[in-house]
Amino acid sequence: MKSPIVTLTTDFGYVAPWTGVMKGVMLSINPALVIVDLTHEVPPQDIMSGALALADSLPFFPPGTIHVAVVDPGVGSKRRPIVVKTAKSYFVGPDNGLFWLAIERWGGLEKSWRITNQEFLLHPVSATFHGRDIFAPVAAHLSRGVRPDDFGPEIDDLENLLLPRPLLKEKKILGEVIGVDTFGNLITNITSEILRSYDTQKLTVTINGISIGGLSAAYSDVPAGNALAIVGSSDRLEIACFRGSAAGHFDAGRGTPVEVNF
Amino acid sequence: MKSPIVTLTTDFGYVAPWTGVMKGVMLSINPALVIVDLTHEVPPQDIMSGALALADSLPFFPPGTIHVAVVDPGVGSKRRPIVVKTAKSYFVGPDNGLFWLAIERWGGLEKSWRITNQEFLLHPVSATFHGRDIFAPVAAHLSRGVRPDDFGPEIDDLENLLLPRPLLKEKKILGEVIGVDTFGNLITNITSEILRSYDTQKLTVTINGISIGGLSAAYSDVPAGNALAIVGSSDRLEIACFRGSAAGHFDAGRGTPVEVNF
Amino acid sequence: MKSPIVTLTTDFGYVAPWTGVMKGVMLSINPALVIVDLTHEVPPQDIMSGALALADSLPFFPPGTIHVAVVDPGVGSKRRPIVVKTAKSYFVGPDNGLFWLAIERWGGLEKSWRITNQEFLLHPVSATFHGRDIFAPVAAHLSRGVRPDDFGPEIDDLENLLLPRPLLKEKKILGEVIGVDTFGNLITNITSEILRSYDTQKLTVTINGISIGGLSAAYSDVPAGNALAIVGSSDRLEIACFRGSAAGHFDAGRGTPVEVNF
Repeated sequence: MKSPIVTLTTDFGYVAPWTGVMKGVMLSINPALVIVDLTHEVPPQDIMSGALALADSLPFFPPGTIHVAVVDPGVGSKRRPIVVKTAKSYFVGPDNGLFWLAIERWGGLEKSWRITNQEFLLHPVSATFHGRDIFAPVAAHLSRGVRPDDFGPEIDDLENLLLPRPLLKEKKILGEVIGVDTFGNLITNITSEILRSYDTQKLTVTINGISIGGLSAAYSDVPAGNALAIVGSSDRLEIACFRGSAAGHFDAGRGTPVEVNF
Repeated sequence: MKSPIVTLTTDFGYVAPWTGVMKGVMLSINPALVIVDLTHEVPPQDIMSGALALADSLPFFPPGTIHVAVVDPGVGSKRRPIVVKTAKSYFVGPDNGLFWLAIERWGGLEKSWRITNQEFLLHPVSATFHGRDIFAPVAAHLSRGVRPDDFGPEIDDLENLLLPRPLLKEKKILGEVIGVDTFGNLITNITSEILRSYDTQKLTVTINGISIGGLSAAYSDVPAGNALAIVGSSDRLEIACFRGSAAGHFDAGRGTPVEVNF
Repeated sequence: MKSPIVTLTTDFGYVAPWTGVMKGVMLSINPALVIVDLTHEVPPQDIMSGALALADSLPFFPPGTIHVAVVDPGVGSKRRPIVVKTAKSYFVGPDNGLFWLAIERWGGLEKSWRITNQEFLLHPVSATFHGRDIFAPVAAHLSRGVRPDDFGPEIDDLENLLLPRPLLKEKKILGEVIGVDTFGNLITNITSEILRSYDTQKLTVTINGISIGGLSAAYSDVPAGNALAIVGSSDRLEIACFRGSAAGHFDAGRGTPVEVNF
């Protein structure tokens, strides 16, 4: 049987060898594992950014994929190490809301477990690196067919994570920027699903007092340096500058209000 | 049959999970695929840098390797998505010159196709992320043996990309810096092939009015902090500082003129 | 027989495609190779940092793993290219002390060889990129079962690397910071083994004239922004700030003295 894929999402950066070490741990347990890095540049301890990265990536991996994520300010404290099962995927990591957006958006929670069985961990379990000592070995054992029940007791009170919800009025949406990408594009909490219930033919987007026209179909619909609104690749309204940075242009970042008028 | 290698070259950076998502798409189609990252730090939308990275990497991969590259300011516009075949390799990406230096330098164009067959794409095809929706799935299907003809009609008018050519005089070469590497080494458009037609025993390299001696055989031929000229690992004349940055030392970057006198 | 793992540690960064090129060379020789990146962000030419990364990672890889590392200011000079065998692992890279901490810490040197046999190298061997032309092909051939003796003559005078040793007094340890991680945590040369010979129940850590209390069991034992001392994941005394940067807080870096009083 082909081994499932394991993905890794962390805030470890690329300077220290920590993600390589997690791979060493996993390949020691399951040499056939295929490991895919989603990102290791989640801003330090920024659970919301990690949760968005996972939610955006999830639909593009095959059923049975095991997603390991470590954005974990509470490492070594009482926050629980968990395994989560949804219709399509498994998640392994800290119980701090990191998986919540992915769970909510793609099919919903089936079952979750608290990891307590010491048999599957690396000993001694350090106080500072559960990615290596708990999450990596548990994911690798899971990939080899160990049943989730064997890792510990079922739980039913996972930590949630609330994405700021846009305010929907009759002819207006009041949303906000929830992320900024590598190109300086501003990703908002206004999804294409929300937009679909309005008349998007005559829409104006306003950010920091500046109005942008309607929805563009491509970045290059406007001259270089000009701003545009577009439904981006994560199915969210996005404000961009063709060959430029909208974050710089509008002096905007996470939390900046975005208004759509119809 | 062993699956061919797919390489990835993009300007996506390492913050967003986009390259991981492309891998998820490819492994969903061909679980046996071996994927190698060339770089995801091509400066944003800098086609020339991406083209140089590909041209320098190509000879070190086995025949049949599929090179996917996404440096794509025209995504969503009329620029064509293409598959290209050369004697040794395949290329999949946007038709904007990104593959041209690799094609020119290593064996030349055999055939090229415009991707039009919707059957092999991810739907809906977004306006902003063709790496995920077009290039990744096409490369994965190609790796499984789908014939290039099945992706769309043959074309014969690929976009070219012109590298600035050095001016060759009887006792002098007028070239320029075309790239700066991680160590601050200045890579020029003067290849070892060009140098070979001159008498390299008595040569002087001049940059920003400062003369460097002849060709060194190793970075460490000069004392720490000193400048040297060397034929670098991409077979180009390179100006470096041993244990230092030539870019900083000479306040030079892409486009800085470099003169070689014999 | 399953192919062994090859790990890569370099100071090449992620901008140029050099590490991808090394993978192309290795996969051309051994298509079944599993390659794991430890880090490519070793500070340029900083042998000590590369050596620490290797020493910290080693125990988490299976026996027989081949560790390739390239932090190589002497490339092209007389420094020797080497293969090293320890009880558990192989090392391939430059003879400049880069492997020494890993060898010393985990089981000790068994044998070492100077690479001289041209048959296993890429030709022409460049003066600037031995990672591609020497170390990658030698590691790949080693992974396929070529015996170390076939690469060149045995040697018995490897370059060492001395980590600054802490001064151990009766009721006091005088150590120093030897590394700073992504989160700004300060890693010291005081190992948990050294601490064990003291009474760690009543200990005070002092850095840059500021005293921190005793050892914490988790980063989150203190309020956000506060400093703490902890035995970190590499089994060393570490000074950290919960949800903050100790490097910034104490204006400290490599070489900053750290005093532990009992």
